[in-house]
Amino acid sequence: MIQGLNELLKKRFHITIHNQDLLDEAFTQASYVNEHPNQNLKFYERIEFLGDAVMQLVVSEYIYKRYPKLPQGRLTRLRAAMVNEDSFASFARECTFDKYIRLGKGEEKAHARERDSLLCDIFESFIGALYLDQGVEPVIAFSHQVIFPKLDEGRFDEFFDHKTELQEVAQQNGPVAIDYELVSEDGPNNDRAFKVAVTIDGKELGIGEGHSKKHAEQVAAKAALNKLQANN
Amino acid sequence: MIQGLNELLKKRFHITIHNQDLLDEAFTQASYVNEHPNQNLKFYERIEFLGDAVMQLVVSEYIYKRYPKLPQGRLTRLRAAMVNEDSFASFARECTFDKYIRLGKGEEKAHARERDSLLCDIFESFIGALYLDQGVEPVIAFSHQVIFPKLDEGRFDEFFDHKTELQEVAQQNGPVAIDYELVSEDGPNNDRAFKVAVTIDGKELGIGEGHSKKHAEQVAAKAALNKLQANN
Repeated sequence: MIQGLNELLKKRFHITIHNQDLLDEAFTQASYVNEHPNQNLKFYERIEFLGDAVMQLVVSEYIYKRYPKLPQGRLTRLRAAMVNEDSFASFARECTFDKYIRLGKGEEKAHARERDSLLCDIFESFIGALYLDQGVEPVIAFSHQVIFPKLDEGRFDEFFDHKTELQEVAQQNGPVAIDYELVSEDGPNNDRAFKVAVTIDGKELGIGEGHSKKHAEQVAAKAALNKLQANN
Repeated sequence: MIQGLNELLKKRFHITIHNQDLLDEAFTQASYVNEHPNQNLKFYERIEFLGDAVMQLVVSEYIYKRYPKLPQGRLTRLRAAMVNEDSFASFARECTFDKYIRLGKGEEKAHARERDSLLCDIFESFIGALYLDQGVEPVIAFSHQVIFPKLDEGRFDEFFDHKTELQEVAQQNGPVAIDYELVSEDGPNNDRAFKVAVTIDGKELGIGEGHSKKHAEQVAAKAALNKLQANN
């Protein structure tokens, strides 16, 4: 049992998970399991696999119903803005889930607890555990507390900016392949710097830097737009 | 109302969709809507967006529970083998859904009815309509008729072959990026030939040809494996 986690879930989210093993599994990283070989523990990855699919459906259904006129392309982009590593890591931090993850000593020293990829995984595995324990309704209720209000706060608006514009401009004369590739990732965990390149049909058109991959992609898309528009 | 579709669903799958508009929407392509501007019709794309997420969850949950020891990586690969254009197009054909799609005349002439991408879309939009009409349980029941039995028939075993092996061999010394790219696609709709290239960290290592993208990818992976193993 993870100290304080049940209390947090109950107090803040009115959630009581009945299958304690499932909840422990959802907050346990492989490194911790490896350091406690005799305790027959499981780590979160399988539950996260399921939680990811649950989250996709819950978000898809919500935006499908909330925006009855939004065409498929924009629904897909909005979902991608909501369901990604950046968002989920920030939701996990907001829920203070980072405090409750069981990590091995090496990972603890390497500041894994602050890593977006781990926080995103844990957010998904929590969702998976909640779903397995109680079905989809509590996941929807939780999303109404933690995720959906961000739509009204304009949290996902940024996404409709440069990347969307680049897609629209680049595909004026037919479909092209637009890819964002992480070029580098440096700096301490609390101050990472990401560099991203955007290519159109394999040709590099812009580079962007930022403190998140998402922001770096926006900057790269903006650079590519400038280049495309200068050429026209 | 689409002639014969209700009868097919009832007779073969014991399904009665109550919201007829939803079912019509799920089987109607944009080209048909454009040709009937005064009928206030909708096309399938938004429902397909939702159906895709429903299918992901239903398949994820089934394999999560059926294979309690399968690690996340293999669950992810198995899901990818089950939930993709090739599979869904073949399921749509098997259900004879192709006969009921409402297409514009131009698309009909261009043999859109035989196109994998459209059949896959329609399969997903049917799932979306069923889900919106009746929730997830009938989707699970339908999947037990149409999708899950294929696991026992070995339909998805192929996936565990060359692509998986290539991944394991190529990543022995750390993570690499393995990409499959469609090089060309020729021939009549009932006899398409696909050519796929596989690259590892951007370097092309193999080319494969086949009558489906999936098969061409397998052949490309095999070629890459031969090359890698010859170099060792």
